[in-house]
Amino acid sequence: MKLKLQEPIIIVNFKTYLESTGNRALKLAKQAEKASNKTGVQIVISPQFVDIGIIAKEVEIPLLSQHIDAINPGSHTGHVLAASIKESGAIGTLINHSERQLKLSEIDTIIDITKKHNLISCACVNNPSVSSAVSALDPDIVSIEPPELIGTGIAVSKAQPEIITNTVELVKKINKRPVILCGAGISKPEDVAAAIKLGTNGILVASAIVKAKNPYDLLLKFAETTKIP
Amino acid sequence: MKLKLQEPIIIVNFKTYLESTGNRALKLAKQAEKASNKTGVQIVISPQFVDIGIIAKEVEIPLLSQHIDAINPGSHTGHVLAASIKESGAIGTLINHSERQLKLSEIDTIIDITKKHNLISCACVNNPSVSSAVSALDPDIVSIEPPELIGTGIAVSKAQPEIITNTVELVKKINKRPVILCGAGISKPEDVAAAIKLGTNGILVASAIVKAKNPYDLLLKFAETTKIP
Amino acid sequence: MKLKLQEPIIIVNFKTYLESTGNRALKLAKQAEKASNKTGVQIVISPQFVDIGIIAKEVEIPLLSQHIDAINPGSHTGHVLAASIKESGAIGTLINHSERQLKLSEIDTIIDITKKHNLISCACVNNPSVSSAVSALDPDIVSIEPPELIGTGIAVSKAQPEIITNTVELVKKINKRPVILCGAGISKPEDVAAAIKLGTNGILVASAIVKAKNPYDLLLKFAETTKIP
Amino acid sequence: MKLKLQEPIIIVNFKTYLESTGNRALKLAKQAEKASNKTGVQIVISPQFVDIGIIAKEVEIPLLSQHIDAINPGSHTGHVLAASIKESGAIGTLINHSERQLKLSEIDTIIDITKKHNLISCACVNNPSVSSAVSALDPDIVSIEPPELIGTGIAVSKAQPEIITNTVELVKKINKRPVILCGAGISKPEDVAAAIKLGTNGILVASAIVKAKNPYDLLLKFAETTKIP
Repeated sequence: MKLKLQEPIIIVNFKTYLESTGNRALKLAKQAEKASNKTGVQIVISPQFVDIGIIAKEVEIPLLSQHIDAINPGSHTGHVLAASIKESGAIGTLINHSERQLKLSEIDTIIDITKKHNLISCACVNNPSVSSAVSALDPDIVSIEPPELIGTGIAVSKAQPEIITNTVELVKKINKRPVILCGAGISKPEDVAAAIKLGTNGILVASAIVKAKNPYDLLLKFAETTKIP
Repeated sequence: MKLKLQEPIIIVNFKTYLESTGNRALKLAKQAEKASNKTGVQIVISPQFVDIGIIAKEVEIPLLSQHIDAINPGSHTGHVLAASIKESGAIGTLINHSERQLKLSEIDTIIDITKKHNLISCACVNNPSVSSAVSALDPDIVSIEPPELIGTGIAVSKAQPEIITNTVELVKKINKRPVILCGAGISKPEDVAAAIKLGTNGILVASAIVKAKNPYDLLLKFAETTKIP
Repeated sequence: MKLKLQEPIIIVNFKTYLESTGNRALKLAKQAEKASNKTGVQIVISPQFVDIGIIAKEVEIPLLSQHIDAINPGSHTGHVLAASIKESGAIGTLINHSERQLKLSEIDTIIDITKKHNLISCACVNNPSVSSAVSALDPDIVSIEPPELIGTGIAVSKAQPEIITNTVELVKKINKRPVILCGAGISKPEDVAAAIKLGTNGILVASAIVKAKNPYDLLLKFAETTKIP
Repeated sequence: MKLKLQEPIIIVNFKTYLESTGNRALKLAKQAEKASNKTGVQIVISPQFVDIGIIAKEVEIPLLSQHIDAINPGSHTGHVLAASIKESGAIGTLINHSERQLKLSEIDTIIDITKKHNLISCACVNNPSVSSAVSALDPDIVSIEPPELIGTGIAVSKAQPEIITNTVELVKKINKRPVILCGAGISKPEDVAAAIKLGTNGILVASAIVKAKNPYDLLLKFAETTKIP
């Protein structure tokens, strides 16, 4: 059975930073687990493909792959198979991250594949109109990240709140099921608070945590902030 | 220091077959190791990204990734970082497999990256003229695989020997350093023998081994065949 | 002002057949114009980029480009600019044809660009769920073409009518505005009749017309068939 | 028979600037023709696909397409067919421009296609090692353009002369046939002079000419400069 994620959700995208590769990825994963245990808030990590198997053996918080390909088992050298990330311990995958954008028909196929494998699908979108399109494909999670803010430290939830409110409205109009997250520039607890107030169910965060001096401390603060009513 | 591969070389490409995913990948890796130990022939395996770490811990034969991306560490969600496959235990990577073809400038960048990380680069090509182009970029290995024969059981070394002899000639004219392998349709020991006779230093094989009833037995035969003078 | 297309609509996609290149493209365009004039049915042609300008000078039926890129004017060597196809005489463009699939965010950007340039957008989709996703982006036309039937002579409207009825239903649920066409395998007047009966507003056709012995005659029959109530 | 280009060569890449679209493209083409006639220097223009046919009817200087696809005639909606650009009046094509990069096997296929159609192939490369790789595929022209300088006004021939001399050396070592051009940042006559002195046979230029107040005057100066021994 597919793991049900408890909201609010904080997803930490490890990307391909050196700070979140190999042993350092494992160490970061354990800090995320500790922060999740301490606060009771659902923290999900998304490490690099290569690190999924080792990390999944060592932590109990959920893991998402950063991508899977729109393929069935077969002759697809260099691609990422749903069955492989599942057997390694991932419970789902990011899809269409702005740094790994996909053709529309691939997104459709991948969401179908996740359903067949009982994997959680987190479809990433760059703007509200794309969020409404992707909602028609019925992913479990829609995460809005304006690419121009990624890595800037300028939080979408503070700088462009209307992007989030529009996304929430457009997604709900088409499909009430997806959990809605936001990302891009989230770096302070107040950015998290703003995201929750605007109607999201959590955040997708990367460099702020991965490159933090003390990722555990910052995750604690982020997690506590999500609880504020 | 970069592991020096001893010729002849048999590379087993696990692709994304279910028979070579997760636990079954590990089992296959162990059979390859056993065949290598028994024959003294260099057998190299190329499992899926997700399986590299676990397999590298359990076997002593060399592992290649099936692909890496032309990236440096940073914001590249869903991509494959050289440092990550290296830390997991791979000693190199396939590049530009016909199922994962790359832009010319990416191949150039990736070969540079492998040199910086002391990783072995195995550049795959679809025909002799492309083999000569890629040789100018100085990969460690050039592997010729006419895509129309992949998975057919019709061996390039039997059906189109001139493709191999042309490749050997064109590569040597431009760069004497690369080891030359051939693949596509290799399914019987006699295909291996033909490849060696035509001047290659070994083979790249996938479905014939991965989907064999007894991969160990077939690898034994392939390995023994490579020794025939 | 954007040309308003009158329904039913027959779009003839010239693809990159030799039979619809250069002078032969112009000849075919004139036959389409003649069939349109004779029947009063809206026939739209979609020639290759290079042929748009010459054909637009010689015929009065509407022209669509086969693709435009998600770009603004600038440094984009080898790409197709909305302003260039418009100035040459096209009144719109196909988007995301199954032979020229696009990333979701590109489809979104291109539809925006067509709106800014008063160009007609015809978004092509491969299945009903993708048709619903694309409808959220508000194209003028949605054309459903299951890629596995393209060029087969097996008409989607006869072989898989449920694909069309599902598409019509899903599109309408999300956006009542788009005109709905269907394609793939349309080769006989009865295929056209079936498409209309299933609730579409016309068809997208390619090889059946382009490679017909007498394209004018077949277009006449197709056009007459669309009028049957 | 393929038009033989007389060296030195100035190629003006129209890219997708508004200043070089439609009527303005035609006007610019005529200025290029006038400058070529006045100086006797070979000026070649590379307009957008859509504009090739109209311009080729109006000027007598050679035209290159900005790109063609690695396809044969057939079902390739939205692609660019060699036969179509040839019938429209182009005598060749740019290949693999840094803004339209291609897979290695595509470059190989496209150069083959140009040979079959007696079209001139101008392969663009981003650095010296890629120039040597592409030379093995035997294009008629190799044009080196470091992408980081494109559009900067900082000329490669002044800022990084070693890139050009390395390219000339590496190309010649592999294939003596290709004409060698350089581009990126060329904006003043002295940049042209530097390029010629470094051993190239001419230049590839875009924004400096397209966006010049008086493209004719600047082309005159560029052309005269190429004559300096």
